[in-house]
Amino acid sequence: MSYPHRDLRDHLDALERSGLLIRVREPINKDTELVPLVRLQFRGLPEDQRRGFLFEHVTDARGRRFDASVAIATFASSRQVYATALGADLSQIGATWQRALGAPQPPRRVADAPSQEHRYVGAAELDAIGGVDAFPHPISTPGFDNAPFLTAPCWVTRDPETGDYNVGVYRGMIKGPRRVGLQMDTPSQHISVHLAKARRLGRPLEAAVIVGAVPALALASVQKVPYGLSEYEVAGGLMGRALEVTPALTVDLDVPATAELVIEGRIDPDHLEPEGPFGEASGYMGPRTTSPVLEVTAITHRPRPVVQAFISEFPPSESTLMRRIGFGQVYRRFLKHGCNIDSVQDVTFYEPATCNMMFVVRLSNPSAGQAWQALHAAASYEPSMGKIIIAVDDDIDPDDLEAVVWALSFRTQPHRDVRILEHRLPRLDPSEPQDNRYPAATASAMLIDATWGRGYPPVSLPSKPFMEQARQRWEELGLPALSLREPWYGYELGEWSEENRREAALAAIGRYLETGARLATMGGEDGAT
Amino acid sequence: MSYPHRDLRDHLDALERSGLLIRVREPINKDTELVPLVRLQFRGLPEDQRRGFLFEHVTDARGRRFDASVAIATFASSRQVYATALGADLSQIGATWQRALGAPQPPRRVADAPSQEHRYVGAAELDAIGGVDAFPHPISTPGFDNAPFLTAPCWVTRDPETGDYNVGVYRGMIKGPRRVGLQMDTPSQHISVHLAKARRLGRPLEAAVIVGAVPALALASVQKVPYGLSEYEVAGGLMGRALEVTPALTVDLDVPATAELVIEGRIDPDHLEPEGPFGEASGYMGPRTTSPVLEVTAITHRPRPVVQAFISEFPPSESTLMRRIGFGQVYRRFLKHGCNIDSVQDVTFYEPATCNMMFVVRLSNPSAGQAWQALHAAASYEPSMGKIIIAVDDDIDPDDLEAVVWALSFRTQPHRDVRILEHRLPRLDPSEPQDNRYPAATASAMLIDATWGRGYPPVSLPSKPFMEQARQRWEELGLPALSLREPWYGYELGEWSEENRREAALAAIGRYLETGARLATMGGEDGAT
Repeated sequence: MSYPHRDLRDHLDALERSGLLIRVREPINKDTELVPLVRLQFRGLPEDQRRGFLFEHVTDARGRRFDASVAIATFASSRQVYATALGADLSQIGATWQRALGAPQPPRRVADAPSQEHRYVGAAELDAIGGVDAFPHPISTPGFDNAPFLTAPCWVTRDPETGDYNVGVYRGMIKGPRRVGLQMDTPSQHISVHLAKARRLGRPLEAAVIVGAVPALALASVQKVPYGLSEYEVAGGLMGRALEVTPALTVDLDVPATAELVIEGRIDPDHLEPEGPFGEASGYMGPRTTSPVLEVTAITHRPRPVVQAFISEFPPSESTLMRRIGFGQVYRRFLKHGCNIDSVQDVTFYEPATCNMMFVVRLSNPSAGQAWQALHAAASYEPSMGKIIIAVDDDIDPDDLEAVVWALSFRTQPHRDVRILEHRLPRLDPSEPQDNRYPAATASAMLIDATWGRGYPPVSLPSKPFMEQARQRWEELGLPALSLREPWYGYELGEWSEENRREAALAAIGRYLETGARLATMGGEDGAT
Repeated sequence: MSYPHRDLRDHLDALERSGLLIRVREPINKDTELVPLVRLQFRGLPEDQRRGFLFEHVTDARGRRFDASVAIATFASSRQVYATALGADLSQIGATWQRALGAPQPPRRVADAPSQEHRYVGAAELDAIGGVDAFPHPISTPGFDNAPFLTAPCWVTRDPETGDYNVGVYRGMIKGPRRVGLQMDTPSQHISVHLAKARRLGRPLEAAVIVGAVPALALASVQKVPYGLSEYEVAGGLMGRALEVTPALTVDLDVPATAELVIEGRIDPDHLEPEGPFGEASGYMGPRTTSPVLEVTAITHRPRPVVQAFISEFPPSESTLMRRIGFGQVYRRFLKHGCNIDSVQDVTFYEPATCNMMFVVRLSNPSAGQAWQALHAAASYEPSMGKIIIAVDDDIDPDDLEAVVWALSFRTQPHRDVRILEHRLPRLDPSEPQDNRYPAATASAMLIDATWGRGYPPVSLPSKPFMEQARQRWEELGLPALSLREPWYGYELGEWSEENRREAALAAIGRYLETGARLATMGGEDGAT
């Protein structure tokens, strides 16, 4: 099956056909109203009711009206929306990613580039329209953010030595008509490597910032892929065909031909200045950072461009949903194949923990030592990931926090099953501030083995035949539709005797008084009777 | 407002009037079908859709049909059902309890006792009808339980020395027509104290087992009240009038006059024998215990009695909901008033943790040391309660497990904020079995301080005015009804400067480029620009 979207607009049409797009034609102020409106669905609707939003009549706090629309929450407001962006069935998300990563395709230059239909080159032309501020970039966290930030820009740069492409999503602060602040989390991010090399070579780093790319490129750019593998090629793998690109006007970079908006420019690697604060996915405002700036040299765009933004900040959000899907794949593969722990079934990340801080590794009949091997290995993949890591058995549904609480309650003894790991790396975590700022100097993790690992008595629910029969009667009686959670019938866990089974079988055919009579003859621990 | 129910039947009528009772007229087998059917609603429906069940046509595995009905899940399948049993508004549950405990009333003997309309006295009359087995006591966990157990019986006994009454709910195994096994969790339970005294005095303990009492008595009997305070009097406090009682026929005890079924008998304190196993509220089958037995001397009942049972076993259940409400009251009072920790707001128990194993103490601006004082005090109230105890701030909604995960993720560092407490008492906890049985020899607890306790950056949501305005626009746009979770707007937590506030205010009126220009002049930490 080939990828169904040629550009962002095709994807928005697909969402609309599936009832997954809310089109708002009423005027909306991008500085004060737009993100708060969409935010409400993340605090007030269950995931399966969340949709993408397309705002067609965007205004701002200065009374401007934009000849552009804003698409937000259109990539990952729910798993169904994400699957649509990926061009896959819901159940095929993991398989689609595995297939794409195994078959990258180099991009292909094309002559027809809608992304360059409108062109503004040089300071005079840019300043005449207002530069990057001529487009409706929304303020994400009105009341706390100090500017609009690009939340879904794909930053395209090339390794100054090898020429290899990298495309990554890093937020961009709108600082002036020709100035966009760049903020990267850690020095291991690929654009940081490019910047460090440019600094060593004593020259600026050229960059193009893509807004409103075909979804395959954006999804490839937020996924962690190995250094040197271009996200252009990964996007090609996802699409099953080459990404269409065209040369940029003022920098030596190819840019996507069907993007909505392209901002070209140069980054002086020696210039840093204050940036932010910005509302982070942790659920807290991040700190003011000291960061580089893109000096804009040109802007090109499609007619009436669609400015696409991610809704991030307080979890859950598009960011955390994309992480939940991506991290689950990456960690499962690492533990099961990289570390050879075959009993690992899946790894589940939690959006209220921003998918960084807490996750659950589910194992199926782990052999001796494997639960702790998996816990330590999971902690070792990335030092900033996993403040609380829990191992559970495969009868626990990790998507159900209540099931995890049940496992923690009755399958652990803290002194035996909990260990604290020091010397971790904090990341956007205000719980250990240094000089009233983070990242902090020290952080730690807690590993919890909540697997039973020995004989346990059966789960105290009627056994499967009785519950199956009850479900049938429930329906016959016309009672309200059920949405059953695991476990919904009892099962053995190693500690249950033949005598127990015999007595239960007798009871179910009404012969329990025979058991009662027999027990009377057995006497008690006091020896009396 | 006086208590609206004179007997169980009044309560069932009240439930039915409120749409909270499902009346099943079709035949239902009490040994194999009845509890599994009701169990489904606890695994497959949200709490507010759960109802009580009244089965009017009860059969059993031996093909008997009973001239009696079974009421189950009629006291605490939801908070609304519980409030109806308590005769209170949902919001007044706590206040009603406090008022009742402050005004106990002694019971009053009456001449008219429907509970004694039918009478069977002595072995011959009892055996002729089948004794206790003549009534439809359901099997709770078919497939694992070895008999029907009374799950909601109120055991009435008197202190052999002082004559003081105690009424407690302890499960009863149907062992024979004239034999009911009694199982108590711990030696501190009041009936255990009576039994120990009877053993010392060398005489049997007289008891009456009440099935289908007026709800006020059952609710009083499951609540922990001080030794020596009779639950008959607490029931009077709850009702605002004396409980109607009448002398039993064969034992020196007064029994409720409007109960559905009364089983009189004697317990030989020197005779113990095997009992159980039974599906426990922990979610696991409990162990076979060695326990005393009631030798039945008489049975009396109302015409066509309603055999009332609790649905317990796997959480959530009626048991866990009753505990959640009761424990929250008891612990809040202990911490706030007993331990003088005024910042304690509430204590929340979790049904998947059987309301024993995990709870959250919420504090409002605790002063230095109070979070840990509250954690240690909460652990010290009862050594078997609280395997995971968490302190949170008052902006965390403890009923929302996702909010608790968020607090654990970003308001703790495990090495600093987690402590393990050894030498705890395990109780119905299979995680530390001794000789393949529990209770075990050792257990531990984990205390977690997830309060911020210092300056934190603001929560990354748009501030309240923007979210309020968005909510209004959401409604104007006719979008789906919201059910907002806390937090749904951003707020400050101590770490936010005047400069931050000024910049955010400028941004919201569209003057963010002024901020961008100012930042450009400030330079970065590399000193360059």
